[in-house]
Amino acid sequence: MAIDYAQMTVSEAAGAIASGDLKPSTLVDACLERSRSQEPAVRAWAYLSDDQALMAARLLDSKNVSADPSAPLHGIPFGIKDIIDTCDMPTEHGTPMYNQNRPARDAACVALLREAGGVLMGKTVTTELAHFHPGKTRNPHALTHTPGGSSSGSAAAVAACMVPFALGTQTTGSVLRPASYCGVYGFKPSYGDVSRSGVFECAASFDTLGWFTRSVEDIFIIRRALIHAPASTFVPADLSQLRIGVFRGPEWSKADPQTRESMESAIAELKPLVASVQDIEPPDGFDDIAHCHKMIAGYEFARAISWERTQRQHQLSPKLLLGRCEDGLQCSYDEYVHAQATLAEQRRLIAMTMQQQDLLLTPVAPGEAWEGLAATGDPVFNTAWTSLHLPALSIPAFKGPAGLPVGLQLVGGFRRDEQLLAAAECVQQALGIGNVRAVN
Amino acid sequence: MAIDYAQMTVSEAAGAIASGDLKPSTLVDACLERSRSQEPAVRAWAYLSDDQALMAARLLDSKNVSADPSAPLHGIPFGIKDIIDTCDMPTEHGTPMYNQNRPARDAACVALLREAGGVLMGKTVTTELAHFHPGKTRNPHALTHTPGGSSSGSAAAVAACMVPFALGTQTTGSVLRPASYCGVYGFKPSYGDVSRSGVFECAASFDTLGWFTRSVEDIFIIRRALIHAPASTFVPADLSQLRIGVFRGPEWSKADPQTRESMESAIAELKPLVASVQDIEPPDGFDDIAHCHKMIAGYEFARAISWERTQRQHQLSPKLLLGRCEDGLQCSYDEYVHAQATLAEQRRLIAMTMQQQDLLLTPVAPGEAWEGLAATGDPVFNTAWTSLHLPALSIPAFKGPAGLPVGLQLVGGFRRDEQLLAAAECVQQALGIGNVRAVN
Repeated sequence: MAIDYAQMTVSEAAGAIASGDLKPSTLVDACLERSRSQEPAVRAWAYLSDDQALMAARLLDSKNVSADPSAPLHGIPFGIKDIIDTCDMPTEHGTPMYNQNRPARDAACVALLREAGGVLMGKTVTTELAHFHPGKTRNPHALTHTPGGSSSGSAAAVAACMVPFALGTQTTGSVLRPASYCGVYGFKPSYGDVSRSGVFECAASFDTLGWFTRSVEDIFIIRRALIHAPASTFVPADLSQLRIGVFRGPEWSKADPQTRESMESAIAELKPLVASVQDIEPPDGFDDIAHCHKMIAGYEFARAISWERTQRQHQLSPKLLLGRCEDGLQCSYDEYVHAQATLAEQRRLIAMTMQQQDLLLTPVAPGEAWEGLAATGDPVFNTAWTSLHLPALSIPAFKGPAGLPVGLQLVGGFRRDEQLLAAAECVQQALGIGNVRAVN
Repeated sequence: MAIDYAQMTVSEAAGAIASGDLKPSTLVDACLERSRSQEPAVRAWAYLSDDQALMAARLLDSKNVSADPSAPLHGIPFGIKDIIDTCDMPTEHGTPMYNQNRPARDAACVALLREAGGVLMGKTVTTELAHFHPGKTRNPHALTHTPGGSSSGSAAAVAACMVPFALGTQTTGSVLRPASYCGVYGFKPSYGDVSRSGVFECAASFDTLGWFTRSVEDIFIIRRALIHAPASTFVPADLSQLRIGVFRGPEWSKADPQTRESMESAIAELKPLVASVQDIEPPDGFDDIAHCHKMIAGYEFARAISWERTQRQHQLSPKLLLGRCEDGLQCSYDEYVHAQATLAEQRRLIAMTMQQQDLLLTPVAPGEAWEGLAATGDPVFNTAWTSLHLPALSIPAFKGPAGLPVGLQLVGGFRRDEQLLAAAECVQQALGIGNVRAVN
């Protein structure tokens, strides 16, 4: 049987290209072929660029990259959430008010990935202005279920092997939740690590670029390209040295019974293999985080979208306009400042916890993807970690009652992202979770 | 003699419009007339929109706003630095690579000012991508001298009474220094308070929108519009209750002798009138701030402009490319994280100082505007306060040896911006500094 290049991880494909066994155009062609066959069912793409991607790949075919460490993504196709600017494809922000919008430049993240040799294949479906109102994307594991949001298309495209990786953004839980629902790896780095220049602003205090892959190592590779760090070898941590905190937290009862059981089993499995497993109590005031997040996100969003709110009001969904936007306008500066101060204190407290732990294990979503496409699910297990600015990873660890994927969340210390990824790699190996392959 | 409407402050003009004594179109016409007469000498505008501004003003003429507190800027013309997006005027970022660039939307700050009734008159000259390479603007007080930068055109336009206020941005000292050089009020709010959505990103950890006016009260009025807070009456602080810290700091010797003398005289004048005047020693480690700022600003800028750096390299000035950009690419993630941690600690230390003081008095620039247009001056007295995220204000307090303006900097506690403005008002009254009127 012929090798299905579309199923390769970034690391596998980059290796095959570097050794001369695979041409960039062959890989891009395989991903385009796969996209064409899957797209009618999955609907991951807002814009898919056949010609441009193939042309870019063919230009790369002739270059010898085995000796070019500055192009670790040479010939690797990728997708990006359609709130990220591109100079050669439309950027429509998930709303008709930006039909055929063509920015003058690429967002910094796109330029960095292209600089590293990546081939942009297209723009993936997002919810309206990266909020609640869903796009057309369906969950590759069950087409009648939501893929999660707002980075819906990016998660689904990676799960359906249309691209080996894709960018999303997270303001609440918009990377981690769809990763869990679609059964792929999803990563939100430490707040501030990756430039958001050219990415639609929702709430500047939380907005973070994230990405979806089919392996932990790939997250590491993409991260280094996005922060313009030299490529280097990914070295898993030593499992026996790991200090794991188990954070069930105040929302634990909102996790489905099977999610809780799965997590407890995983903990029991890890316990004899690691240095320590410790139950972590939420710091005092942890319960206030979700409310503070809601206030700040609303306050900042209502102001950031002032042009849309005042000039294109009729094109905003009632849910956005009367919900987050109106809430945000009602929030006073003093309330906003108070909420910011509360979060600053929570960040100080969690930093003390993270000095004692290499990572926290915690649910990433209550359970499987919701049935229906009218809503994208509940970010209840994501809000706190986004608010605390910590790096967080969803690994496709479990199955729910209906056989759909359920993730496990690993949270690391602020700006210790590589340490988290190294730890995640040995944790998933211990749990017997491998790279993700095609759903069908 | 006829009233020169172009010399009015925001507050005066808004009052005259609300009482029916002045029509928006009359005011805009006066400012356009003044711009036409001053522009050949001052060169403040990258784009000046006659027709659009007059049309917008005429639409407002017919509205009765005396009873509309949501439009505190009804009919008030303004300019904005040309790194701020507008949907109906070009946005060229001070470089030919963005010739005729037309964004799809207004930046949040523009939409908020228009929502409050403001009339955008045009885009003001900036340096290349808001960095060092100067634009064409000249100092209205002495045409052979720099106006300062990077918000050159905005400072000069307000000083020359072409507009009553204008927006700039500050990543190092790009609002406060030109305010000092051009003899107007310049304000940089607390970091994070005003949305930067639609403003060209230089260094996300420092970038802050700021503005120029001809009175302290106007700063207050604009601030409330920009944070979408209800308009309210500006109440000066009680001078006799003020606790003033005098911060000469490690760079004191870089201030010109006359600047130091002027500041010492002002302090002597204030001393008997206020609750306390205390010399403030820099916190331990304060000297490291400038180096950390340089590392972080370079690191972030080199990544934020990845598209320009990789796709339009030939259109970047050698100074930008080989200076800040190359420095930034050389800075490693670990160095960056270390610099960020150092600044976080400095912010904690200065917060303790600011608990004891209502404001700090400190130089804003070494002295008068430099002769020549090849460089925009030295931000040596601005870097620390920008890095510390504190609100800072330049008031046109002094004259230098050549009779050119020299500002005095007032720094407030984080997110105590209105308290700083209230204090500044009574300080400047005590020093006998009034609203700014036309240079000629």
